Amino acid sequence: MSLQVVVIGGVALGPKAAARLKRVLPDAQVTMVDAHKYISYGGCGIPYYVSGDVSDVQQLLETSFHMVRDIEFFQDCKDITVMAETRALSIDRKTKTVVVQTKDGAQQSLPYDKLILGTGSTPRQLPLPGRDLGNVFTVSTLDEAIRIREQVSTGSVSSAVIVGAGLIGLEMAEAFADMWGISTTVVEVADQIMPDFLSRAMADIAKGHLVEHGVTVHTSEMVQALEGEDNQVKRVVTNKRTIDADLVILAVGVLPNDSLAREAGLLCHDRGGIIVSKTMQTSDPDIYAGGDCVLTENLITGKLGYYPLGSLANRQGRVIGTNVGGGRQTFDGALGSFIVKLFDYAFAGTGLTLAGARREGFKAWSTHVIMPDHAHFYPDRDMVSLELVVEELSGRILGIQGACKNGDSIKARIDAVAAMLKFRPTLRDLSNAELAYTPPYGSAMDALNVAANVAENVLTGQCTPIQPEDFARLWENRTQENLLCIDTREWPNAEPYVTKHPNFWVNIPQGQIRDRLDEIPKDKKVVLVCNTGARAYEAQITLSDAGFVTLSLQGGMGFISETGFNPNANKDK
Amino acid sequence: MSLQVVVIGGVALGPKAAARLKRVLPDAQVTMVDAHKYISYGGCGIPYYVSGDVSDVQQLLETSFHMVRDIEFFQDCKDITVMAETRALSIDRKTKTVVVQTKDGAQQSLPYDKLILGTGSTPRQLPLPGRDLGNVFTVSTLDEAIRIREQVSTGSVSSAVIVGAGLIGLEMAEAFADMWGISTTVVEVADQIMPDFLSRAMADIAKGHLVEHGVTVHTSEMVQALEGEDNQVKRVVTNKRTIDADLVILAVGVLPNDSLAREAGLLCHDRGGIIVSKTMQTSDPDIYAGGDCVLTENLITGKLGYYPLGSLANRQGRVIGTNVGGGRQTFDGALGSFIVKLFDYAFAGTGLTLAGARREGFKAWSTHVIMPDHAHFYPDRDMVSLELVVEELSGRILGIQGACKNGDSIKARIDAVAAMLKFRPTLRDLSNAELAYTPPYGSAMDALNVAANVAENVLTGQCTPIQPEDFARLWENRTQENLLCIDTREWPNAEPYVTKHPNFWVNIPQGQIRDRLDEIPKDKKVVLVCNTGARAYEAQITLSDAGFVTLSLQGGMGFISETGFNPNANKDK
Repeated sequence: MSLQVVVIGGVALGPKAAARLKRVLPDAQVTMVDAHKYISYGGCGIPYYVSGDVSDVQQLLETSFHMVRDIEFFQDCKDITVMAETRALSIDRKTKTVVVQTKDGAQQSLPYDKLILGTGSTPRQLPLPGRDLGNVFTVSTLDEAIRIREQVSTGSVSSAVIVGAGLIGLEMAEAFADMWGISTTVVEVADQIMPDFLSRAMADIAKGHLVEHGVTVHTSEMVQALEGEDNQVKRVVTNKRTIDADLVILAVGVLPNDSLAREAGLLCHDRGGIIVSKTMQTSDPDIYAGGDCVLTENLITGKLGYYPLGSLANRQGRVIGTNVGGGRQTFDGALGSFIVKLFDYAFAGTGLTLAGARREGFKAWSTHVIMPDHAHFYPDRDMVSLELVVEELSGRILGIQGACKNGDSIKARIDAVAAMLKFRPTLRDLSNAELAYTPPYGSAMDALNVAANVAENVLTGQCTPIQPEDFARLWENRTQENLLCIDTREWPNAEPYVTKHPNFWVNIPQGQIRDRLDEIPKDKKVVLVCNTGARAYEAQITLSDAGFVTLSLQGGMGFISETGFNPNANKDK
Repeated sequence: MSLQVVVIGGVALGPKAAARLKRVLPDAQVTMVDAHKYISYGGCGIPYYVSGDVSDVQQLLETSFHMVRDIEFFQDCKDITVMAETRALSIDRKTKTVVVQTKDGAQQSLPYDKLILGTGSTPRQLPLPGRDLGNVFTVSTLDEAIRIREQVSTGSVSSAVIVGAGLIGLEMAEAFADMWGISTTVVEVADQIMPDFLSRAMADIAKGHLVEHGVTVHTSEMVQALEGEDNQVKRVVTNKRTIDADLVILAVGVLPNDSLAREAGLLCHDRGGIIVSKTMQTSDPDIYAGGDCVLTENLITGKLGYYPLGSLANRQGRVIGTNVGGGRQTFDGALGSFIVKLFDYAFAGTGLTLAGARREGFKAWSTHVIMPDHAHFYPDRDMVSLELVVEELSGRILGIQGACKNGDSIKARIDAVAAMLKFRPTLRDLSNAELAYTPPYGSAMDALNVAANVAENVLTGQCTPIQPEDFARLWENRTQENLLCIDTREWPNAEPYVTKHPNFWVNIPQGQIRDRLDEIPKDKKVVLVCNTGARAYEAQITLSDAGFVTLSLQGGMGFISETGFNPNANKDK
């Protein structure tokens, strides 16, 4: 008799596992159950449907060859039976059956030989007064996306508040502000946006771009209530202010839907999430699970983590399909690779941030570089900013984050590191990584090679840097700190700073340092600056050799100015 | 006493090694000798200077912060003494001196503690009648580039012939045809362009784009003579025709400049190239060499190969600088990563081609995929074509080549594999590679993940494919071969082919295959086709399960049509 397989969950993991299984074992009888009407849609595309970049919701439901992935498609093209608008109520592991309830309320018992759980996640709920007012949304289903798009496209929304500055929240902010001209405010409780994804310095670059494009961003601020009129939301009250809002998005993360598994006695984590082996089996070997409802080992830390990412779900789904079909594959772990488009900039990363690495107990350091994505003499180019996170003693690469106007360019840099990370690379591997080079698309020494070299110079003590964030703090307290910045660029670059801050900023071009050693004070905290950090580093070597102790600004004025640092702004003391 | 170091060669490797050395060991006394006037220029930028994309030759000589890397720059900013227009005549290893001849003819002896050879390469010479006519160039130095640009920019060149369809030859072809409207012909002796870099199918895609942009390409054709008038070249005579040419570029590869090393008794390869250890030391441990004059181990084959690439030279230069300065680093080997821009398309690769792998004795296979670089529902996207080369039994990844209109997108895919290759990845590593995903810049299952999955399906016998090249041959002989193509797309896609070739092309949409098994002939060679290979693969599984033997076209009509294959073209039988 053919294998009977029930799949619970019809988005990302479920359809992928089911389709792969049918290819490996064509005579398996597969039934896929989902509580909603729409199945197998591109959930990551929701912000682009809301923005209008994707004009028709149909496009999120179609294959690349323009067939709608509906019940008939799965029946005809995949030989998979789909029960939509059907809830899975319970799993009886003794009789190996799943009890489901169809749209009309009838209950039914589905027998299985193997069961696949792709139950996904639910947006984290905030216990806010006013949570149930109209026009308060999470962004969890296509139904909701359709209702949001209806609201914004009718012109009835003039102001919106996004609660939570994670990836989805910021994508929604762009969708509202960019395409619909809605006055948009993001409120985030942490002291920076994208707190789990970027360092403070990188996040400041992102925040700057949001603000530049008209989005208001409030960090370190907590939403306390939603207020409305006629049952529709009208205002968001925070601990600092009241903000008008015709529409509110709650985007404060998601939680794994593990209750079905938990009630069936499957091993789940105390803080949520089904525990699975690397073969994607739960504690019952006949039940597999993957995607947003499971925990996955982090390839850097070796610890379980939560990675509710559509791309991960697809790859885990394939492993499940193979294994249920009689194969044996493993899903070894996750890195947390991400990329997000914010207006005309992209931010991306993989592995750990510096703060994340230190939280995990790594003795870690990060280096900042800024360089063109293409050859510096090639006319079409954008600057790439990178922050490379390394373990101090081993030189092991723990993660990297970056930003560039050209999203494909930053993806190239992040993906190269993501592809290496499971092999535990060190700086030497990245220093000599042989990336494809031609002036229209790269540099002879790519930004990645340079980032590794800079990190090595720091770890070997060849370079004594100061990071952008630390320099910004130092500059704030420049009098008490007895700071002197030596600008190693040529005079035209240095002039505005020297003119405005003659006591704190002097100019000695790098090529003249050797002959002007007598101008270097020994009683001040000396920071060497240039555009990218390269000349400051050269100057530092000359000065170290002559017995001077200095710091060189990592990433130079190029990087730090992207974070919004400007010693010559009017607000300056 | 401080270390005395002589560097021979002032482009790429030499300056990099010298500058790195001075940073590691600031009191080293470094003298860099070069035979030419211009030093430390971006040689890879020459085609873009000739085209005018880079407007001023100065830009190739400048740092990213717009300082010209001339003798003064090296003196002031790097504390390196440069002797330009100075030829190194011989090395005396006993006395540890280099004899050089300066511009005025005077000879001088330079003592060294350590010597660094970055003597580069020389264009391969063809013993052609007419080789010495005016306007016959190689593209080896900036001087030559300046003379070429002078010629083309004065409008005196109406036709040009490029001999050799390697990377530099094709870049020059683009420069002439695109920016200066010169009637341009490329003549290549091999039966395809870029023979060492791409498979025939991928090379056909590239050739198609060259032709589309007005470049004439003759493959399998040998140049026999150059003819001129008034000492200027006017015609190129091949074994097949005579082509008008006011200017000729000979771009048939380069040879390592190893004679200085060879005459000094250093170990060199019979067929050219200095032999160095992974620490970049020659057979004399006080003499280091790198860049275009050395051989480098291939990381896939373990054999010595020749990689005259500017990016490699820079990275090897850094290793030399570190080691001469008392450190110990290694350069582990090369992959041959490349990318080339041809008009509005980019072609790239890393590792071995299928032909290269088989020449090396690998039992290898390649898979072809075609997919959008961004989500298929996102409006801004281009198709990525990939050919993944794998070892059959192990599933080890040996190389990958690809093409895309978006050069940054193809770089992202190739660089991710390049970053992995030294760790000897298998298909499973690539299948689960966690690349950064968001719809504006990628797909949930990236083209790289898909390529690995397709390859795995082939290796496990799950899919029985036919490659584009083989299918094109089969189609040519469709009557004798008793061929039947079953088009598994919907009718509108299949209709033109079915109408034109009713005996060879029928339509059974993939979703109907299961119900129309009686229409599948058992006495014909059946090839299943669709747009990308995905539906043909699904159909094949259904048919295999029902006992039919078929082939599915890899990469589908999408890939093969890029190579110029068109069963409905008028030239058709």
